[in-house]
Amino acid sequence: MLGGYKKMKQFISVNDLPSVEKIIKEAITIKNDPYSYAHLGKNKTLGLIFMNPSLRTRMSTQKAAVNLGMQVMVLNIDKEAWALEFNDGAIMNGTNVEHIKDAAAVMGMYCDIIGLRSFPGLINKDLDYSEYILNKFISYTMVPVISLESATLHPLQSLADLITIEEHKSTLLKPKVVLTWAPHIKALPQAVANSFSEWMLKANVEFIITHPEGMNLNPKYTEGAKIIYQQEEALQDADFIYIKNWSSFNNYGQVYDQGEQWLLNKDKLRQTRNAKIMHCLPVRRNVEVPDELLDGPNSLILEQANNRIYAAQVVLKNILENIS
Amino acid sequence: MLGGYKKMKQFISVNDLPSVEKIIKEAITIKNDPYSYAHLGKNKTLGLIFMNPSLRTRMSTQKAAVNLGMQVMVLNIDKEAWALEFNDGAIMNGTNVEHIKDAAAVMGMYCDIIGLRSFPGLINKDLDYSEYILNKFISYTMVPVISLESATLHPLQSLADLITIEEHKSTLLKPKVVLTWAPHIKALPQAVANSFSEWMLKANVEFIITHPEGMNLNPKYTEGAKIIYQQEEALQDADFIYIKNWSSFNNYGQVYDQGEQWLLNKDKLRQTRNAKIMHCLPVRRNVEVPDELLDGPNSLILEQANNRIYAAQVVLKNILENIS
Amino acid sequence: MLGGYKKMKQFISVNDLPSVEKIIKEAITIKNDPYSYAHLGKNKTLGLIFMNPSLRTRMSTQKAAVNLGMQVMVLNIDKEAWALEFNDGAIMNGTNVEHIKDAAAVMGMYCDIIGLRSFPGLINKDLDYSEYILNKFISYTMVPVISLESATLHPLQSLADLITIEEHKSTLLKPKVVLTWAPHIKALPQAVANSFSEWMLKANVEFIITHPEGMNLNPKYTEGAKIIYQQEEALQDADFIYIKNWSSFNNYGQVYDQGEQWLLNKDKLRQTRNAKIMHCLPVRRNVEVPDELLDGPNSLILEQANNRIYAAQVVLKNILENIS
Repeated sequence: MLGGYKKMKQFISVNDLPSVEKIIKEAITIKNDPYSYAHLGKNKTLGLIFMNPSLRTRMSTQKAAVNLGMQVMVLNIDKEAWALEFNDGAIMNGTNVEHIKDAAAVMGMYCDIIGLRSFPGLINKDLDYSEYILNKFISYTMVPVISLESATLHPLQSLADLITIEEHKSTLLKPKVVLTWAPHIKALPQAVANSFSEWMLKANVEFIITHPEGMNLNPKYTEGAKIIYQQEEALQDADFIYIKNWSSFNNYGQVYDQGEQWLLNKDKLRQTRNAKIMHCLPVRRNVEVPDELLDGPNSLILEQANNRIYAAQVVLKNILENIS
Repeated sequence: MLGGYKKMKQFISVNDLPSVEKIIKEAITIKNDPYSYAHLGKNKTLGLIFMNPSLRTRMSTQKAAVNLGMQVMVLNIDKEAWALEFNDGAIMNGTNVEHIKDAAAVMGMYCDIIGLRSFPGLINKDLDYSEYILNKFISYTMVPVISLESATLHPLQSLADLITIEEHKSTLLKPKVVLTWAPHIKALPQAVANSFSEWMLKANVEFIITHPEGMNLNPKYTEGAKIIYQQEEALQDADFIYIKNWSSFNNYGQVYDQGEQWLLNKDKLRQTRNAKIMHCLPVRRNVEVPDELLDGPNSLILEQANNRIYAAQVVLKNILENIS
Repeated sequence: MLGGYKKMKQFISVNDLPSVEKIIKEAITIKNDPYSYAHLGKNKTLGLIFMNPSLRTRMSTQKAAVNLGMQVMVLNIDKEAWALEFNDGAIMNGTNVEHIKDAAAVMGMYCDIIGLRSFPGLINKDLDYSEYILNKFISYTMVPVISLESATLHPLQSLADLITIEEHKSTLLKPKVVLTWAPHIKALPQAVANSFSEWMLKANVEFIITHPEGMNLNPKYTEGAKIIYQQEEALQDADFIYIKNWSSFNNYGQVYDQGEQWLLNKDKLRQTRNAKIMHCLPVRRNVEVPDELLDGPNSLILEQANNRIYAAQVVLKNILENIS
């Protein structure tokens, strides 16, 4: 243990970490020797509860857990168990069969740590941003909870992203990291972008966000970031470009459909410092990011995906040390 | 081993146990030291086959198996494999792709023990009560079978319930246990209630059932129980109240929709001996049981859910000892 | 190790084996001592990726992997993750959320070996026979790939079939093996039949195929086999009869609906050498094969299913030896 993490009791945002810098270092140490803590998970069970689809999170978190010697139980709760009721005091005479109060409490009895994925509805901003599903889950279960992407944040992704930046940055310069909005045809959550912003603002980087006017994220997560509405200006001298779509925060959940010119290509990157290309995946190729960037020599998308293992593993390790 | 269980070859009802008393004692011993038999399951595989949704059974039985060192394979057979045919001699030119004869036999080759969940159709009483799915499964597979709730019984639930009663009973008195019917909007199986009755009648308790006239369970499972149609009279001096809805046995599968006054509340429990509240979950809150009882200090619902682990574990342990 | 398998880097057809004879011997050795290579899979993860239903393949391959000490992650990719795009260069503005290029590459980062099931569409012969899904998957992932049945071949089934024939053949005679087409009501892939033919032509057997005229398989897989259009003539002196339906290769994907007289029965087998009956399962009983043959004393269908474990295990063992 590198010290200072004994306090990690949940992982739902960057604020659950005592130190971003230390956790990145520890993750890289684990990556170099992934089975060195295989004793920690003995007789410990991780429950992975999905309310939405998942590929990377599902597999990388499983892999992280087995690297630590844990047992894993995966539950697609909406498909394999019972439809959940979330309203306290509800008279449950509708289609929902089990209250989250009971489901969360029970799952906490069968697991030592629980990961939960619950996407936003993108209809009611206040409801989504209250994180009512995640927070109810946490309040009713009695074990540490890890967010596998909640309505507003995706901290395991951001941690993996920052590990990747750490591995690929020049050691001479403080890297310039630009988060750019990208076009998309569906309404996507703001979670990955919110979370990335929150993490970058705690990291030792110069951080810029660029998006169409009016397509701002929740200021809560971007306060302190430089925001530029001209994409090419923002990309100037960039070392890392994080490309991501999000639906409107202001006109909550609306797709911004006049953003085609925000699609990047090689030409637009000429003024960067040979910038690395990042995306969390899944990506709609040639809608959100062109093949030429995703498949080009500067693409880090697979490194990011790979680092999802070590992001999950360092988080699980620290929580295991706290509960064992 | 506490002796006397060498004979457990399946677990589909209380009748598969040589002694209820001994298995309860053994379950509590295991609960106090859950990893003490981790060698028993080495190189043994448990298959959990679901034809219906499951949360508690799915997770608690997995947890029990890994506590014993077993490997677990979970199969949602209807969704992940093939639609099953159950009729012997059928000319299979319809929608069913595989006969249970073949599916059950094959699964028995890949697993050392199989758990099966198969709910009743609630349309044809004779068919459901013949347990044709479970029985065909047993007859075609060649390994021990554990019921994860069949059409008419749910023995792992009842075993967990009895462990819970044992843990919470006064040591001075033979406890008075009342099973009360509760209202519900959907047609539910009789399995939990049948099974609870069957187990209570073998346990060292005073057992009473109360339900609206005409809403009796199958007499096969309740013979010997005192049945009282006045709920408040039945609850008098109760130590444990097991609250559960079931659809009609007589008018098979019908919802009894004039039972609203059977919904319990605190006031109605004044004449009990500060009775503990039990329910198997999932529960439709404020339809079947009010929040004030489920969340009150006398609620045992989470203890019951937790004991599902040790119910499954003591059963698996005894079967493993028999087959190894 | 019996020598000579160091080169197995994938398993998508019989051509990935240096020697059919040796692998059969090795599989039988493993069957007699299935846990003897449990060290090989330590810290190795098998990903089983299903685009279609599966019972035998799913469970037997899991069992094989845990016998070797591997961890297993199962993903029903269409239901639990994201709808896949297969066209290179596609502008992904439709219903597909993730390109196979990214999904396959990412899964390869989380797994040491990947098994993939992808059935044919049975609409476009050239597309199916190009094995575009399997081949794209292989080209984009960076780890060894095992076919769990592809559009045109099912090598794990054929390997299990050949193990079964080896175990049940007379040691005096070169066995006569007949693959016979059987009736069915749905359009089935040609994969099992193609693959069986390919394997039999490399085995030390006399191999005959019988089917209605015009219902030939792809000549690529049957070249060298004796083809007889009269079923009873073909069955003469047979030692093993492999019964299987396939849809038309010529009129691609069409159901041949004039084949009822091809349904076998005991009488038709009088001129055989007391032939053993084989089928890969699932089987539509009394449409494809009658109960009297499937349940008769000469049926090998459960032996075949059982040998699926050891087929998968010998393949995984050889690949593990190659990558460790």
